[in-house]
Amino acid sequence: MGRRVKDPPISWLMQLTLSQPDLVSLAAGFTDQATLPVRIAGELTEAVFRHKTRGAAALQYGSTQGDPRLRSLTAAHVADQDHSSDTAQSPPTRSSVDRSADSTRTLITNGSQQLLYLVAEALLDPGDIVLVEDPTYFVYLGITDSLGVRCRGVRTDEEGMDIDHLQEVLEQLDRAGELSRVKLLYAVTYHQNPAGTTTGLERKRRILHLLRRWESRAGHRIYCLEDAAYRELRFAGPDTPSTLTIPGAADRVIYAGTYSKPFATGLRVGFGIVPKTLFKVLFRLKSNHDFGTSNLLQILIADAIESGQYVKNLERLRRRYASKAATMRRACRAHFPPSIAWNEPAGGLYFWARVASGKSTGLRSRLFEAALAEKVLYVPGALCYAADPARRRPDSDMRLSFGGAPENRITEGIRRLGRVLERFGRA
Amino acid sequence: MGRRVKDPPISWLMQLTLSQPDLVSLAAGFTDQATLPVRIAGELTEAVFRHKTRGAAALQYGSTQGDPRLRSLTAAHVADQDHSSDTAQSPPTRSSVDRSADSTRTLITNGSQQLLYLVAEALLDPGDIVLVEDPTYFVYLGITDSLGVRCRGVRTDEEGMDIDHLQEVLEQLDRAGELSRVKLLYAVTYHQNPAGTTTGLERKRRILHLLRRWESRAGHRIYCLEDAAYRELRFAGPDTPSTLTIPGAADRVIYAGTYSKPFATGLRVGFGIVPKTLFKVLFRLKSNHDFGTSNLLQILIADAIESGQYVKNLERLRRRYASKAATMRRACRAHFPPSIAWNEPAGGLYFWARVASGKSTGLRSRLFEAALAEKVLYVPGALCYAADPARRRPDSDMRLSFGGAPENRITEGIRRLGRVLERFGRA
Repeated sequence: MGRRVKDPPISWLMQLTLSQPDLVSLAAGFTDQATLPVRIAGELTEAVFRHKTRGAAALQYGSTQGDPRLRSLTAAHVADQDHSSDTAQSPPTRSSVDRSADSTRTLITNGSQQLLYLVAEALLDPGDIVLVEDPTYFVYLGITDSLGVRCRGVRTDEEGMDIDHLQEVLEQLDRAGELSRVKLLYAVTYHQNPAGTTTGLERKRRILHLLRRWESRAGHRIYCLEDAAYRELRFAGPDTPSTLTIPGAADRVIYAGTYSKPFATGLRVGFGIVPKTLFKVLFRLKSNHDFGTSNLLQILIADAIESGQYVKNLERLRRRYASKAATMRRACRAHFPPSIAWNEPAGGLYFWARVASGKSTGLRSRLFEAALAEKVLYVPGALCYAADPARRRPDSDMRLSFGGAPENRITEGIRRLGRVLERFGRA
Repeated sequence: MGRRVKDPPISWLMQLTLSQPDLVSLAAGFTDQATLPVRIAGELTEAVFRHKTRGAAALQYGSTQGDPRLRSLTAAHVADQDHSSDTAQSPPTRSSVDRSADSTRTLITNGSQQLLYLVAEALLDPGDIVLVEDPTYFVYLGITDSLGVRCRGVRTDEEGMDIDHLQEVLEQLDRAGELSRVKLLYAVTYHQNPAGTTTGLERKRRILHLLRRWESRAGHRIYCLEDAAYRELRFAGPDTPSTLTIPGAADRVIYAGTYSKPFATGLRVGFGIVPKTLFKVLFRLKSNHDFGTSNLLQILIADAIESGQYVKNLERLRRRYASKAATMRRACRAHFPPSIAWNEPAGGLYFWARVASGKSTGLRSRLFEAALAEKVLYVPGALCYAADPARRRPDSDMRLSFGGAPENRITEGIRRLGRVLERFGRA
């Protein structure tokens, strides 16, 4: 099975970054180094190990599904977000939000990444089809690829997946006799990696509605995997309720969340809120993978949440990313030629830019080579599009991260990239 | 794929344990609570978070293959054990040991469990065959089962796998035209879970020799996965060199080790030393699973090793387990009827006992029921045997763990079990 696993391109990009310290990397999805909660983590671990019993609990095996306290806090944390999110357009009812607050179907994982992997293992056989956004999270494409699973790209706009196109893709698959292979729709719904888009509540409703309508023809449930990894890294505008709040969600929505990005990536703690029918199989797979995530890390996160330090740190993080995004925006405005279009995200870690001329930005392109020569690195957009036979793979986008680099390096990186783009615009 | 995953029986046993506090559990492979290194972990984490830079490194993403310092320390740690191990019978040469000390093919994982899973994913397709010990680690059987992989049991004696029987099994598979499906041999070589056996060096040599001889007929390499999870929990007798020290090992031996059992299970840090040709695919799979194990945990282990605290704690642990094993031995001698045979392990966490009458000890047996009524729990031996069509699954063994329970509870548990066995011996 492993023979299908390809080299993740990001690892090559990361090696490049590490081997050339004068390179400005706008490629890696690293988080901001300066705001990592070193003092908070120090205080919290000290408090854990000061008590023999609590300390021993942190160092002993726990249960595969996760620490009960963290599971409760997690379910409540997501429900809180759904309660307080923007409900102007169509408020989720109290009872619908409470459905999401169910710790019995909350599973703690090693980052949300592990949840994505477990769900793929649980639901997908080789040859099955996942509907993904165009563009989507490229590591997810690595997972599906390694399992021999195919992806179909659905066009997106500034509100998320294009419903008409989703309908069209399903119709095409039906005509091709492939509808029975469609098991899952995967969407990164908050400050999307890579395009920065947040999916609106109405759009989520229509996606779920459409999937439900097609289920009987498909002959089985079509699950919706909502990847909310960047939800809490919002620095402008209101929050949006999750897909968990929509009627029918309890049976088919898998919500993947994480404490890595909004607290500390080095801790690698994520979670899933999953349909009851799926919980058992995910639990069993997690048993086979590793019996459960480190208790120490789980206790650390739970204590951070209960003490209020988690939220305090998150506020600091949001201000920091808002400032970094503003820096990147200013730099793009100052240094990019008019032929370059880019988004201005309200959260997350990424700008998504497009070369209007249609010139390739790919790993083997002259543009990428020229950028490397100028000592600046980006993620080529083509990596973020599924290998979908129904369309040519777009090849003129760039993912630009403002997460890891300090602000002066962001400005310098965009200046260098602007120089390259200017030259290629003329050529 | 997940549909094949069965409920792990151990989770049911663990739930039983947690729901009935007056139950004496000799089932779970928990480690001793009193010797968990709470003070050491407290001091080490405090030192990490006292420094802004080291603290930030612990909280930031690392690399998928693991922290470079821990990888080096790990390779050296295993090489040290191979150097200082009993070499009376046939010493590994300096150069053969140095082959094992290769950090470039060392991968850090979430416990050694994750390494076992990644190796299975990398090497095995549904229908493939793994040669395992009779009995073997039952969670491993859960992994192979979930991947649709078959296992064939090889008889064992007090020195490890029976070479004649291994040869016989390979011949049978050859005759059945199934040799091409044999990809891997899996052996728990130190204080085996469940039988307590340690595989001798000569036996390791003959296993590897046999596998190499059969490779050309199989049409491909047959890998040897050496699970050394209990190696450092030795409390009597000399250490044995690992299979890594045997000529030909570099290409086909996968060594799975862990820091969970010998330091702190709650940290969930393990490792693999793997053939160069396998490293890349395991690295890629690990990328898809979770991008890498928590940096904080890795730094904690590396600091424990470098500061000497790891070894100091290990000595304490060994004394503790030696004492607990002696307690269990005394209790077995005092309370088991003469019809019960058991091993006396020189390390690890388990006694392995057999009911001479051939009475079933299984989950649905009257004996298991009677033990539950007496409030004592064991792992039924049948769970530790592969579903091998070539033999009836043995059903009269019991795995008895002295790891988790305090000494007075061990004595009480064996006393209760002795009462049950006495009654069943008479019936």
